[in-house]
Amino acid sequence: MTKNVYFFGNKKADGSAEMRDLLGGKGANLAEMTKLGIPVPAGFTITTEVCTYINSHGGKYPPGIKKEIMDALRKTEGIMGAKFGHPENPLLVSVRSGARISMPGMMDTVLNVGLNDRTVNGLAAKTNNDRFAWDAYRRFVNMYSDVVLGVKALGDEDYDPFDEILARIKKKYKVKHDTELSTEALQDTVRAFKTLVMERTGKIFPDDPMEQLRGAINAVFESWHIPRAQIYRQMNNIPEEWGTAATVQSMVFGNMGEDSATGVAFSRDPSSGENYFFGEFMINAQGEDVVAGVRTPQPINGSRKVPKGVVTMEEAMPDTYKQLVALRDKLEHHYRDMQDMEFTIQQGKLWMLQTRNGKRTASAAIKIAVDMVGEKLISKKEALNRLEPAQLDQLLHPMLDPKAEKTLIARGLAASPGAAIGRVVFSAAEAEKLTQTGDPVILVRIETSPDDIKGMHIAQGILTSRGGMTSHAAVVARGMGTCCVVGSSDITVDYKKGIFATTAGLVVKRGDFISLDGGKGEVYKGRVPKVDAQLSGDFATFMKWADEVRRLKVRTNADTPRDASVARNFGAEGIGLCRTEHMFFQDDRIIAVREMIMAESQEQRKQALAKLLPMQRQDFIGIFQAMESLPVTIRTLDPPLHEFLPHTAKEVKELAAVMKVKVAEMEKKIELLTENNPMLGHRGCRLGNTFPEITEMQARAIFEAACVVTKQGRKVLPEIMIPLVGFESELKLQKEIVQNVAEEVINSQGLKHKIKYLIGTMVELPRACLTADRIALEAQFFSFGTNDLTQTCLGISRDDASRFLPYYLKAGILLQEPFVSIDRQGVGRLMEIGVSKGRSVKKDLKCGICGEHGGDPASVEFCHSLGLDYVSCSPYRVPIARLAAAQAALKEEDKTRS
Amino acid sequence: MTKNVYFFGNKKADGSAEMRDLLGGKGANLAEMTKLGIPVPAGFTITTEVCTYINSHGGKYPPGIKKEIMDALRKTEGIMGAKFGHPENPLLVSVRSGARISMPGMMDTVLNVGLNDRTVNGLAAKTNNDRFAWDAYRRFVNMYSDVVLGVKALGDEDYDPFDEILARIKKKYKVKHDTELSTEALQDTVRAFKTLVMERTGKIFPDDPMEQLRGAINAVFESWHIPRAQIYRQMNNIPEEWGTAATVQSMVFGNMGEDSATGVAFSRDPSSGENYFFGEFMINAQGEDVVAGVRTPQPINGSRKVPKGVVTMEEAMPDTYKQLVALRDKLEHHYRDMQDMEFTIQQGKLWMLQTRNGKRTASAAIKIAVDMVGEKLISKKEALNRLEPAQLDQLLHPMLDPKAEKTLIARGLAASPGAAIGRVVFSAAEAEKLTQTGDPVILVRIETSPDDIKGMHIAQGILTSRGGMTSHAAVVARGMGTCCVVGSSDITVDYKKGIFATTAGLVVKRGDFISLDGGKGEVYKGRVPKVDAQLSGDFATFMKWADEVRRLKVRTNADTPRDASVARNFGAEGIGLCRTEHMFFQDDRIIAVREMIMAESQEQRKQALAKLLPMQRQDFIGIFQAMESLPVTIRTLDPPLHEFLPHTAKEVKELAAVMKVKVAEMEKKIELLTENNPMLGHRGCRLGNTFPEITEMQARAIFEAACVVTKQGRKVLPEIMIPLVGFESELKLQKEIVQNVAEEVINSQGLKHKIKYLIGTMVELPRACLTADRIALEAQFFSFGTNDLTQTCLGISRDDASRFLPYYLKAGILLQEPFVSIDRQGVGRLMEIGVSKGRSVKKDLKCGICGEHGGDPASVEFCHSLGLDYVSCSPYRVPIARLAAAQAALKEEDKTRS
Repeated sequence: MTKNVYFFGNKKADGSAEMRDLLGGKGANLAEMTKLGIPVPAGFTITTEVCTYINSHGGKYPPGIKKEIMDALRKTEGIMGAKFGHPENPLLVSVRSGARISMPGMMDTVLNVGLNDRTVNGLAAKTNNDRFAWDAYRRFVNMYSDVVLGVKALGDEDYDPFDEILARIKKKYKVKHDTELSTEALQDTVRAFKTLVMERTGKIFPDDPMEQLRGAINAVFESWHIPRAQIYRQMNNIPEEWGTAATVQSMVFGNMGEDSATGVAFSRDPSSGENYFFGEFMINAQGEDVVAGVRTPQPINGSRKVPKGVVTMEEAMPDTYKQLVALRDKLEHHYRDMQDMEFTIQQGKLWMLQTRNGKRTASAAIKIAVDMVGEKLISKKEALNRLEPAQLDQLLHPMLDPKAEKTLIARGLAASPGAAIGRVVFSAAEAEKLTQTGDPVILVRIETSPDDIKGMHIAQGILTSRGGMTSHAAVVARGMGTCCVVGSSDITVDYKKGIFATTAGLVVKRGDFISLDGGKGEVYKGRVPKVDAQLSGDFATFMKWADEVRRLKVRTNADTPRDASVARNFGAEGIGLCRTEHMFFQDDRIIAVREMIMAESQEQRKQALAKLLPMQRQDFIGIFQAMESLPVTIRTLDPPLHEFLPHTAKEVKELAAVMKVKVAEMEKKIELLTENNPMLGHRGCRLGNTFPEITEMQARAIFEAACVVTKQGRKVLPEIMIPLVGFESELKLQKEIVQNVAEEVINSQGLKHKIKYLIGTMVELPRACLTADRIALEAQFFSFGTNDLTQTCLGISRDDASRFLPYYLKAGILLQEPFVSIDRQGVGRLMEIGVSKGRSVKKDLKCGICGEHGGDPASVEFCHSLGLDYVSCSPYRVPIARLAAAQAALKEEDKTRS
Repeated sequence: MTKNVYFFGNKKADGSAEMRDLLGGKGANLAEMTKLGIPVPAGFTITTEVCTYINSHGGKYPPGIKKEIMDALRKTEGIMGAKFGHPENPLLVSVRSGARISMPGMMDTVLNVGLNDRTVNGLAAKTNNDRFAWDAYRRFVNMYSDVVLGVKALGDEDYDPFDEILARIKKKYKVKHDTELSTEALQDTVRAFKTLVMERTGKIFPDDPMEQLRGAINAVFESWHIPRAQIYRQMNNIPEEWGTAATVQSMVFGNMGEDSATGVAFSRDPSSGENYFFGEFMINAQGEDVVAGVRTPQPINGSRKVPKGVVTMEEAMPDTYKQLVALRDKLEHHYRDMQDMEFTIQQGKLWMLQTRNGKRTASAAIKIAVDMVGEKLISKKEALNRLEPAQLDQLLHPMLDPKAEKTLIARGLAASPGAAIGRVVFSAAEAEKLTQTGDPVILVRIETSPDDIKGMHIAQGILTSRGGMTSHAAVVARGMGTCCVVGSSDITVDYKKGIFATTAGLVVKRGDFISLDGGKGEVYKGRVPKVDAQLSGDFATFMKWADEVRRLKVRTNADTPRDASVARNFGAEGIGLCRTEHMFFQDDRIIAVREMIMAESQEQRKQALAKLLPMQRQDFIGIFQAMESLPVTIRTLDPPLHEFLPHTAKEVKELAAVMKVKVAEMEKKIELLTENNPMLGHRGCRLGNTFPEITEMQARAIFEAACVVTKQGRKVLPEIMIPLVGFESELKLQKEIVQNVAEEVINSQGLKHKIKYLIGTMVELPRACLTADRIALEAQFFSFGTNDLTQTCLGISRDDASRFLPYYLKAGILLQEPFVSIDRQGVGRLMEIGVSKGRSVKKDLKCGICGEHGGDPASVEFCHSLGLDYVSCSPYRVPIARLAAAQAALKEEDKTRS
């Protein structure tokens, strides 16, 4: 027969830490602690399988479970020396939920089960504290009515009838705080609560402790299904079928006099990571009292500066403190991680209620991990697994001073972390003008387009009222490492008036200062002071360990020498994507770019391109210098030409004048170039194939720059990447152009054999993946462009997805944002096909990824499992990718071993 | 040693018909005829392998070939009783190209090789005809100088110096036609030609017959590489490496007196297919004389009405005629197909120069095939393979009377066959207005958009000045079976003035009559009489045979009862795609549709949908009735909503009034709905999932209609198809909506168990193919939407492809138009994955295709090989698909057998 109930108490337990799936995190942990000899109040856990059983049997429990529960309860009574429901020596219990993975606060809990009009007196006598017993009783009736009987839920969601009764009684007894209520007042309260239950449910509040216990267990299991728990599971990808366990545990009380206390402790400082026993406690109190904030808790440890008059636990209860220190060491050594512990001292006896790995800041996480390796508590590999790679983001960007006073005026999506303080501007032109006066600016737009690139480059931060985490603004900002808040529906932008208004009615004018917190998606009024990111020596040590184990190389997506340097400092091992078109938007170039686009003949086009050549060459010289000795992947022109065209009437007029054509003619031409679906239009290598002179100019700029830098004695490793190839013939033609120019330039400079270069392709169309064996014959490397591959594989335009994707995620149609983390079944499958077909004809074909996904830890893991050679991501995500790559390698090692 | 030269002559030949690859079509055929005992002038063929050898050896010939040629030449001389280069009894030869597949006129030919100042006299003496000999000589010098010596090519392409000389000599001798030139004049001409060669090339015209022969053979091999041949190969997917053969054959002459003649004959009438010996001949003439059109050829056969005074071959040369009839029978029985034969009678002796399967019209092809089965000459299966399925198109559409006099004013692309005569209109509104007066109209647009659908429906024909074979106009017109000419750059449309002008300067005004030939892409002035398509009994017989062998079912894409009926008459076995949105554009609905789109709340949206419900129900009733007992696949709303929005200021104003909002507000809303890439936007099931009430209304309309028609005693088989599914959850949610509505409607009508329906999905995204095993769990059928699948797999927007696709095809980057014929390596591979994954979880999953490709024979064959259950295509392509499906089944049978 299946075992449904797992007992724990007095150093013995049926379960253990490994049985998380069956007993839930809490149940497994209590069993483990008990076995370790830690003083844990006895009790038992009803398994998650029981939850699953109930769900599939219309609420019925498995046969025989009643006896199992009774047996476990009897054992608990034996250990605790009290009897459940006994009028003189009553045992009280708590009933708590616990799933495999912690779902904090999502499910229900019932405390003090076993109290009734008789046992309350036993408790009072036993503790010699009438008030304590009745206070526990009124809390129990309130909680039980709420959770088990659903009294509150019957009324208005926002209205709590128990609060109303309590308020009435406080008024009657003329007291302000709950703690001031006398025993009599509490007795009054219990009576009033029970009357309310009668009124609301038509039933008498259950008096029988066994009935109370059954009700509480049932409510805990049912709470698996309450909406907030369901939503939490959806958000965290927790399967419905896991179910929760229910743990019934003896109550202990920290409020049974001056020899009683309750507290929380961390085995090390969770904020700094220092190896210092950090914690707080309160004498004669219950956990709730700490939360209520009526009294201030005291520190447990005296080794830090403690304010005058404050008594530490070390001083107040030296023996118990010593016991606690011993338990701290035991637990930290046992779990080999920093512990977050809850304890209660009941009449001088220390009980541990919970221990778990403590949450910590990113810098604390690194310090603890590095220290523990030093202490030989954990291995380097374990240390590497102690950090969520995404956490590193906190460390890399400057941030608003958390201690500063500030006024929050709007919230949006935290699109790109960091902090920004600047004057509000509404256009790239304004940004430029204001920046010339030396003032920092924040670009505020409804949404951004490639036209705004220049303004975005200059701005300290970007704020938009529309768009999601993958909107143009968000993607570009992350790429630049610029702080960015998007989709702030709290603000309404009025370009004409040059203002934005908040829902709260505040009007912010052009030139006003605001501050952004890109990590939280918050907008503050005025100038909030900023503090810089401080990278510790521990950080360097930690990242070195990551580099030792990872197999994947990490490159960066960078379009400027500045971005390249930032990324190199963060450990980038090359550029995986340099987008040449971003260079096209600068003021001195855009006119020549437009001339090139509008050219009526190849001759005209070549003339315009000749103007661009020296500028592009200069760009590449800067990048090659910044990336000396490292590979630099340069993508030839990719976006549809019309993106570069003038949009405003003024711009059209200007260009018409330069090109000496009529405005009407210019407008007509612009209209002709407009596409219905530019994403699927005349772009990528289709441009280079229809206008070979563009590729030719770009190749010339690249190789001339390579020659200049080589002559400076620096090593250059250019890798030319042809975008949007669907047919091998497209790549072949482009390759020929690049090769011819390369050979001509290199030979004419006498640098033959001195510049090694590769020509490859960006794999970003399903067809390219499906025919990768043909394409690989023409390619020296593949780089997966997972942004476009996601768009085509899923048929979803990133720019338009905001119309339905948020709804899809909310409704659970999609479980993750495919532009953030690689959709493994679709896009991932195409990548798999691409790699295996490509390598079927070229065994060692270098494969990388340069989509936005290259900086997403889950995607990095996937790339590792695919056997890619490198990932490429925006500069500020390089350390994240390095750690994610290390963790992926470790995970694989574990799998191979097991 | 490899055999390089294959001799044929006097009933013996080294080669045979099977050796096409080695000897080319011509060489293989001559060998075969010779072996059959047909009198063929002797000669020999130099293999295609020699061509390949030369190409890969820098123009060198294989060793030993000279001797092989000399041996074959000696044998030829023996049989023909003349000697190459002999001054008294000279043998003349022709040198011709011949590839595996006929490339008519693409490569070079040299006739009369072996003539010089001595042999010309021998020829004159032998034939007793000075003039004939010198005429042959001057023709030879001209042709040889042109083809072998490249004299013409040295000058201007359009200027022919030989013509100039000839003109001068005709003036000198005061004659008008070449045929009037005397021997002396011809001698003058030869001298002048030779002088020209000397001037232009600096070399004397080669006198030595062997040198002439070497030059001619070399020129023929080299002509494999001339541009027009290369282009032809690209267009017809003929590999470069095949090469051509060169055939050297004795010349015979039909112009050696009244007992000589030349002619062409078809073993049956190539126009009607009747079993009647059809042909023309000319006494004392050469092939070129027929082309020159100076004399009219005479019929060979007298059994048809022959004009008075015209003498047939039967009458003029009764014995030779009998021989020819015998040869006709022999050849037709041997090749088991209608033959196209060239013959020459030289001084009473009949020589066959060529025989090949004759080209024929579609109706002739059917008649011949059916007749030959009746004659037990071929099997039914062979008959089915005798027609290119696409040929059937000719038969199905009415056509302009080929005999009528007409004025061609413009050409464009033949987008949709048929004929149309009507008054010119430039908008849907004009079309409607003019149609009400009872006049037929032709809609002329620069290009069309969904706004024009209504006008396109009403119009007899559609003409656009822009767009390709897959432009909106072309696709929709083919779908409707409406005659359509697109991309006619010969016309310039001016909407404002209500005219279009042709390049020739003709101006056509609104209301003027024009006529279109959609099968040829031609535009005529005025009203050209039309003749109806006449489907013969043979057609029915032929199609019945096709139905007997095919495994694939053929359905149709039809949105109206009318289309459904047309298709049913053409043999459609159901509807594979009924696009509900086409119904949305009609006048009485578009306002309600727009109200639905602009609704601010679900309530408002439901109100608008309630207005649409009865109209949609009525549509479905009509379609179900037309398709009684056959399955009808109905796709729920697919296009992005903004396609339905008002575009003109007037329409916006109207809608604003109806909806009681301000125009500015309306404009803002329209802008909000505009997408960057609508093809990848908020459309397909994404609409149905974000606005479930739309799917609900459509499901209700479908099932209420199904109930009405069922109660009429007709069988209804609805198949509801959910578009653009990428994730199984999308389909699951839509399925639930449709199922709930279906059960409710069917039960409330008491028709439970009486209406069977299916719910499936359109597979049109790469992700759907890659995750088909999951999606199949929710689907009762798959229908591949290969239009969208092509767009996403290749990343090419059909609407924008005209910017580069034509260039890609021309440059050979792409070998076929992927929107016309399935791209097997990319899209086809996805379909393969989709079918196999889908059927891995549902063994008998019904799979079909409903993209435009469903009517393309090559794609139908591919669908057969994939194991699909059906293809669906536009009504007028149904017979084509039926035949293509039959041929695919036969091909498979052959493969399995061999």
